[in-house]
Amino acid sequence: MALFNRVTIVGLGLIGGSVGMAVKRRRLARRVVGFSRRPATLQRAKRCGVIDAGTTDLHRAVRDADLVILATPVDTIVPLARRAASFMSAGSILTDVGSTKETIVRALEGRLPRGIAFVGAHPLAGSERSGIATARTDLFRGSVCIVTATSRTNRRALERVRRLWQTLARHVLVMQPARHDRLLAQVSHLPHMVAFCLVAAAGDEALAIAPRSFLDATRVAKSDPWLWESIFLSNRAHVTAAMKRFERQWQMLRARLAWTDRPALHRFLVSAKSKRDALD
Amino acid sequence: MALFNRVTIVGLGLIGGSVGMAVKRRRLARRVVGFSRRPATLQRAKRCGVIDAGTTDLHRAVRDADLVILATPVDTIVPLARRAASFMSAGSILTDVGSTKETIVRALEGRLPRGIAFVGAHPLAGSERSGIATARTDLFRGSVCIVTATSRTNRRALERVRRLWQTLARHVLVMQPARHDRLLAQVSHLPHMVAFCLVAAAGDEALAIAPRSFLDATRVAKSDPWLWESIFLSNRAHVTAAMKRFERQWQMLRARLAWTDRPALHRFLVSAKSKRDALD
Repeated sequence: MALFNRVTIVGLGLIGGSVGMAVKRRRLARRVVGFSRRPATLQRAKRCGVIDAGTTDLHRAVRDADLVILATPVDTIVPLARRAASFMSAGSILTDVGSTKETIVRALEGRLPRGIAFVGAHPLAGSERSGIATARTDLFRGSVCIVTATSRTNRRALERVRRLWQTLARHVLVMQPARHDRLLAQVSHLPHMVAFCLVAAAGDEALAIAPRSFLDATRVAKSDPWLWESIFLSNRAHVTAAMKRFERQWQMLRARLAWTDRPALHRFLVSAKSKRDALD
Repeated sequence: MALFNRVTIVGLGLIGGSVGMAVKRRRLARRVVGFSRRPATLQRAKRCGVIDAGTTDLHRAVRDADLVILATPVDTIVPLARRAASFMSAGSILTDVGSTKETIVRALEGRLPRGIAFVGAHPLAGSERSGIATARTDLFRGSVCIVTATSRTNRRALERVRRLWQTLARHVLVMQPARHDRLLAQVSHLPHMVAFCLVAAAGDEALAIAPRSFLDATRVAKSDPWLWESIFLSNRAHVTAAMKRFERQWQMLRARLAWTDRPALHRFLVSAKSKRDALD
């Protein structure tokens, strides 16, 4: 069932490519157009069933779309959105898939040319890998997608973006951008920071014998640094708050170890284990 | 090819059970005997091909063994080793699979009854799961095993324990106990501490949307608290040193974020990524 006439995806990496594949596979749009700066990416995207047609010209890419999805690194979304919106037709919708939401939504919602509605979204799927070659039709199937809503959100546009993600993801949550950024700092940005620090802290001799616990905990340190420095910086306040939350627990664990306070250490580990057990 | 006549495994959990299965499968001993306090565990171990026979009587379990393998939590190894050694025959070997080595080796090497040699070992395999039901024949196949050597180590016994693990594991490294504990603190004990703290620091709303990066980084927080408090406490000095190494990186990352120093942040992430990329 086509939800849209023409969907344009700006940025054909892991997320943008997977959105294209999934939209085409489920026939959610009559036509899927891709924009990339690199012709080779467009060719590959067309060959892999990500898009029906591609262009390196942003104007041509977006002018006839009723939905434009920005799937580029977080710090490029606002300027790209402004440029894309200047070419879009009245009544069309602009959305994104960026990993932080407050900065983006504040800059764009209600601030685009008349008739262009912006709705922020963030599918919590991804991987330490990136690029069109890693795109997968089922990337979002088991994932949550967060769609943002504020007092300025266009309700009709919100509903259409929500329906798109309800089709692609396991579950859609609608929430304020600040809440999104606060929660994601705790369960996504923090594990990434910890992973980079664990690797940075390990000596070469130790790395040579790294067991699975280390490899799993640091898998995301293989992620693209450029993507992640953008995410950390664009969510600095919430990331800093999450770091403080982590530090409080760390200091507690450290003190219990220093004092050889086994009963308190035991309670700490039992409590964390029971929270973690409940997630599976 | 039988390396031993009779191997006795004391403690039939994930590691002890997997050692039994692998030793039997490869016919490394003519007979594998198991000791557990729980008859139900012995019955299950026998049914699953972990042991040929089992007993809840430590004396009977070890008196005729030429190799006794202690596979119980780290803080039970020293007292159990002393008891077991008092029943063992001259010329036989006692070894363990404990996750920390310095305390254990210092307490046992050269301090057992005459004719009983102790050799410390630690296969770097395991899982957040525990118990006989999780044992697997191939648990050690892709793993490193560390065997400890000091100036007091009986060379003949060391060689026999090394040969056992060369057959079961991918690779055997012989090193001083203190070096083992220093390296493991960095790549095993630290990721466990971080995992417990990440879970403890996350609020319930955030946990409800935890993505794969969080789940992977915190998988080991499902581990048995009792096992891990023993490991942390028995390796307190090295764990504390590893925590300090982590904290230095954490403070550096925090400062780069606080100053919005993007070039320095970029260099930090690039350097960690390249170390991590080199591990796969």
